[in-house]
Amino acid sequence: MRIPLDRQSLIPLYKQIENYLRDNILSGSLEADTRLPATRAMAKDLGVSRITVQNAYMDLESEGLIYNREGSGAYVMPALSLPKRGVKSETAWPLWQQDLKTDVLSPRFSPQVLNPSHPDLIAFTGVGDPQHFPLRDFYKALQTVIRTEGIDALVYGEFDGGYPPLRETIAHVLASQGIQADPGQVLITSGSQQALSLVCQVLLKPGDAIVVEDPTYNFALELFRSLDFKIVGVPVDKGGMQVELLESLLQQRHPSLIYTIPNFQNPTGACLSGVRRRQLVALADCYDVPILEDDFAGDLRYDGRAQPALKALDTVGNVIYVGTFSKMLMPGLRIGYLVADGPVFDALVDCKRVHDLTTSNLLQRTLNVYVSVGRYQSHLRRSSRIYRQRRDAMLDAIREHLPEDVLVYPPDGGLFIWMRLPGGLSATDLLSLALQKGVSYAPGAWFTLDPQDGERYLRLNFATQPLERIRKGIRRLGAALRRCMVPQV
Amino acid sequence: MRIPLDRQSLIPLYKQIENYLRDNILSGSLEADTRLPATRAMAKDLGVSRITVQNAYMDLESEGLIYNREGSGAYVMPALSLPKRGVKSETAWPLWQQDLKTDVLSPRFSPQVLNPSHPDLIAFTGVGDPQHFPLRDFYKALQTVIRTEGIDALVYGEFDGGYPPLRETIAHVLASQGIQADPGQVLITSGSQQALSLVCQVLLKPGDAIVVEDPTYNFALELFRSLDFKIVGVPVDKGGMQVELLESLLQQRHPSLIYTIPNFQNPTGACLSGVRRRQLVALADCYDVPILEDDFAGDLRYDGRAQPALKALDTVGNVIYVGTFSKMLMPGLRIGYLVADGPVFDALVDCKRVHDLTTSNLLQRTLNVYVSVGRYQSHLRRSSRIYRQRRDAMLDAIREHLPEDVLVYPPDGGLFIWMRLPGGLSATDLLSLALQKGVSYAPGAWFTLDPQDGERYLRLNFATQPLERIRKGIRRLGAALRRCMVPQV
Repeated sequence: MRIPLDRQSLIPLYKQIENYLRDNILSGSLEADTRLPATRAMAKDLGVSRITVQNAYMDLESEGLIYNREGSGAYVMPALSLPKRGVKSETAWPLWQQDLKTDVLSPRFSPQVLNPSHPDLIAFTGVGDPQHFPLRDFYKALQTVIRTEGIDALVYGEFDGGYPPLRETIAHVLASQGIQADPGQVLITSGSQQALSLVCQVLLKPGDAIVVEDPTYNFALELFRSLDFKIVGVPVDKGGMQVELLESLLQQRHPSLIYTIPNFQNPTGACLSGVRRRQLVALADCYDVPILEDDFAGDLRYDGRAQPALKALDTVGNVIYVGTFSKMLMPGLRIGYLVADGPVFDALVDCKRVHDLTTSNLLQRTLNVYVSVGRYQSHLRRSSRIYRQRRDAMLDAIREHLPEDVLVYPPDGGLFIWMRLPGGLSATDLLSLALQKGVSYAPGAWFTLDPQDGERYLRLNFATQPLERIRKGIRRLGAALRRCMVPQV
Repeated sequence: MRIPLDRQSLIPLYKQIENYLRDNILSGSLEADTRLPATRAMAKDLGVSRITVQNAYMDLESEGLIYNREGSGAYVMPALSLPKRGVKSETAWPLWQQDLKTDVLSPRFSPQVLNPSHPDLIAFTGVGDPQHFPLRDFYKALQTVIRTEGIDALVYGEFDGGYPPLRETIAHVLASQGIQADPGQVLITSGSQQALSLVCQVLLKPGDAIVVEDPTYNFALELFRSLDFKIVGVPVDKGGMQVELLESLLQQRHPSLIYTIPNFQNPTGACLSGVRRRQLVALADCYDVPILEDDFAGDLRYDGRAQPALKALDTVGNVIYVGTFSKMLMPGLRIGYLVADGPVFDALVDCKRVHDLTTSNLLQRTLNVYVSVGRYQSHLRRSSRIYRQRRDAMLDAIREHLPEDVLVYPPDGGLFIWMRLPGGLSATDLLSLALQKGVSYAPGAWFTLDPQDGERYLRLNFATQPLERIRKGIRRLGAALRRCMVPQV
């Protein structure tokens, strides 16, 4: 075999031989099962040492391009085993990829919302105000952990529920909210979203029914849709989920889970009344249905009396409580937790383990140092004071700058104001105009079971912007709204 | 109504009234729909102001214990709405809890292994050696991120794949390993375990078949079992998965996914040969089956030639590649990634979002600072040098201290030595004896599809202990083994 060799090249000779053979094998010039020259013969042909040829053959063999038959030499590997080399064709993905069900999730994140072009956009979206995240205190806690715990903080950590001291701290925080939780019943999760996911995966299978408030938290809806659940909506009023309508749904639809956000519901801001709380817990008991209580912002109350958590009313083990530090501290931590009693707890622990083993041990320990020194409580009080002012400022600005026939639902706490536009207007359509004016919000269609039902609504986060930007943003929204309402002549 | 009031008590009078009524309502002493005295009458009865009684009633109403009928006063709420107060009975969980399928996962974590009592246990388990985790450098990176990026590092971060600079850094690291990955095709996950979970959830449903090496990674097995997949095993030899046996399985079992660990397989340490790599990729193409390539320790090679990644051989989009920083840096980070081409990538991004939104933005940014300044590469070289010595020391110690008829499979890299005990011995049984002697390992039954098949095997991690403890640990194992082998007279 004549192989062109360049003896001046920086590429070693054995590599040149190897490259030549590889190219010819992959292009098909050297056909399957062709016998290659014996190393001794090839070496003589090319005027190189036998070792050089052997090196080339060894590489090709280890790449799977040639194979050796005992005592008979080296052969080109048959075609089945060789991938066709070529540019990937964008239109011809494998069949299994073409069959993928990719329409589960609605296209909720339009590029517009994600990448708005306005240079000074006022975003009434997101969770808490990053400016108030306790960066310095948290950083100190991180230093403490790394200094005092060192590598202990960097191993996997506990596989059976999370870092024990953090579970105790959470139990203490919950006790102050009237929830008696044994630290052994607290499971640390990668944000509260994972807690929702674990409960769904342990308790439901595709096709099972789940009861939710309509409207409800958009990422919960996406989760339920992606898992192919039948989603059954219960309307929401000022007093939260209309529990009076629930019993007939339980009888007719036999749901496997009731998902509820009793405090400052996302997106409506409604708070479930005390009466309904007791009714809901009693119905769950009566119809043997678990409740998933998502308390994402229950400690952010600005007015009125605190209501007992459903978990505090549950005496039999029907309620799984989910909480988070993302809204009050910082979303970038991704630490949430759930509290569950009974056999379901161990099933949730197992489920967590198989899906992501553990939640960052370093962050669990840091959070524990931060929360347990009482900084969390004072941060909470400070945030509540600030957010309360912002809520009031936004409500004032709405009264001042938006048309009278805009309907708002003033919340007693949390992060959100839910708003209904005047008849005939679509919040989805309004959004592009609003973005042009420099203000954004979450359109109601993201939150309703039937997007059509949410068209007239939008959700404003009042917690993320300082007072003057709240007023400016609502003025911009008013301007966008008036342009939308100009009668088309 | 006569309510005993203690005017010397620190408990306010309205609270005393409230507590008395609550206790009587919950105990059933005050029956449903009983009319309570009018506030004026009750105030007169008790010799307190009317405001005091009104406060008590308001609290009880907001708790849902009493209700008001317009113009007719306050009534006790009917029983359906009231939970029975009482001590939780451990034996009578709700039916839905009793029906939970809790036997999916084998009891792999015996309390013995988790809480060994030996004061100086030498654990041949875990992943890398925590003593070599680059704590100081990582801490510096963390400082840099918090100083220069501040709150930007503490918000949710990107929902569409992860922190873009980290995705670019990973693409560069992969390029150095021969994998051409576009940063846009890299998805950051909460450890590689989550990557496995996402791929499973996007591509398979319960009852679908998945091909795995037998034995294989125990947490992958647990994941597949928990998702109710039919698990089809292919035996492993020195050259990795016996791909020759795969084609008939593909024809007969129509699997929806092939899961493989081509480099330094967990637990056997075997490395898939170049020939088999090409065959495997070609078979996947031919039978339209995706491959999940778990490269958990591919960059920890101590001997021999690097083989191309399956992903590097895949020209059509069949291979989903999964990597991690847990083994080389620190497991406490929980950051892994996957690389996928074609429509499946967006489906995986969506799946990640619904299950835990994002992976900690703070840790993604810190990891990026650490890796991109090249510290990762030098850490990798240093670790490889150290782990290679430890592998050799363990192999030497095994030859010296264990019976001759113990069979070991010396690996070219990675973390694990797979060992077969002499006939008739069970590694599961041996474990309690070994723990008494002060050494631990992972019994083979954790890794085999049929635990029985793994009884004679055990997996030793040679990377976690310094040389002298490796020798000491293997001596202890030898002592345990000899005690096990003493013929019973």
